[in-house]
Amino acid sequence: MGVQKTIGVVLFDGFELLDVFGPLEMFGLLPEKFDINLLAENEGVVKSAQGPKSVIDYSLKESREYDILFVPGGMGVRTEINNQFLLGWLSERAQTSEFVTSVCTGSALLAKAGVLDGRRATTNKRAFNWVVSQSDKVDWIREARWVEDGNIFTSSGVSAGMDMSLALISRILGEDVSEQVAIWAEYDWHRNPNWDPFAKLQS
Amino acid sequence: MGVQKTIGVVLFDGFELLDVFGPLEMFGLLPEKFDINLLAENEGVVKSAQGPKSVIDYSLKESREYDILFVPGGMGVRTEINNQFLLGWLSERAQTSEFVTSVCTGSALLAKAGVLDGRRATTNKRAFNWVVSQSDKVDWIREARWVEDGNIFTSSGVSAGMDMSLALISRILGEDVSEQVAIWAEYDWHRNPNWDPFAKLQS
Repeated sequence: MGVQKTIGVVLFDGFELLDVFGPLEMFGLLPEKFDINLLAENEGVVKSAQGPKSVIDYSLKESREYDILFVPGGMGVRTEINNQFLLGWLSERAQTSEFVTSVCTGSALLAKAGVLDGRRATTNKRAFNWVVSQSDKVDWIREARWVEDGNIFTSSGVSAGMDMSLALISRILGEDVSEQVAIWAEYDWHRNPNWDPFAKLQS
Repeated sequence: MGVQKTIGVVLFDGFELLDVFGPLEMFGLLPEKFDINLLAENEGVVKSAQGPKSVIDYSLKESREYDILFVPGGMGVRTEINNQFLLGWLSERAQTSEFVTSVCTGSALLAKAGVLDGRRATTNKRAFNWVVSQSDKVDWIREARWVEDGNIFTSSGVSAGMDMSLALISRILGEDVSEQVAIWAEYDWHRNPNWDPFAKLQS
């Protein structure tokens, strides 16, 4: 079986549904390899930007560690960008996590928390300028499906999180495994991180 | 604004995450057009096949009507296929809903409930033979990303639900709208219902 990695999925009201559940489908198809934990500042329920509500497994206030930090985007980021508790938690945990990942505008939170200082990163193309304005210490890449810089994986908007997640599965378990996951999910995986027609459409 | 259509999303323990939240991302990007309701036999919480839990908005026992019925797949279908209450509810509501839709093995439930009698339909390719065994009154299509037969839309496995949902949005609101939704979600939409490389890979 090998080691199972824990994923800490950082949720908040107004998270984007597919940012979260696209990637969790991919990781979730390998239950012996990945242990999924939904987190939020407080226990209870969080409401997505699209309406459906999810149940939190653990509060961020518990002193649990996660191998993989996962930060989605969504309209709620516009509020959380001023949440000093959350930013502090991200800054601290990013130092001890094996991998740090974001989808869509989730990278704005990582940037504001200083996690992306001196790193290459990308984000949603419709919100690109707003995200970039959160930190001038990041090497923002406008045209990319996702960006890998060492142990940090950041993706473009919404659907791009699925491609990034398969790339992370490739890094950890090899490309044969991510190919199998994509077939199980009947997903037409974009394997090229530089494929990004949306950068041009949205600018 | 026009009329807002209500979507009744039929959940159960063991539903597949992306079957549900891929399509709900697409519909949810048009909140003035679609009103999303998570349903289950009982109120409370349902647990997905991958672990994350969702909060139910309304019990199936409430006498609410929905314009669009949406039935996902997942391992839980293997249990629900014997749930006479659920099958009866699907059979009854399918007669009054404007559209009936399924993703993945959700079509097994529709088939067992008699909703697909005399209709063309498809399903997950890994589970194809099991689904087909639930009803010999359906014209099962092995190679298809999704199938439209009148007001019934059934899709292949997991990711195919996103393509089917965009096709339904096209039917209701026009292709310009679904194109815009796909761009917002940075989703590389498969517009051809006959595109299905997975049928060959899985057989």
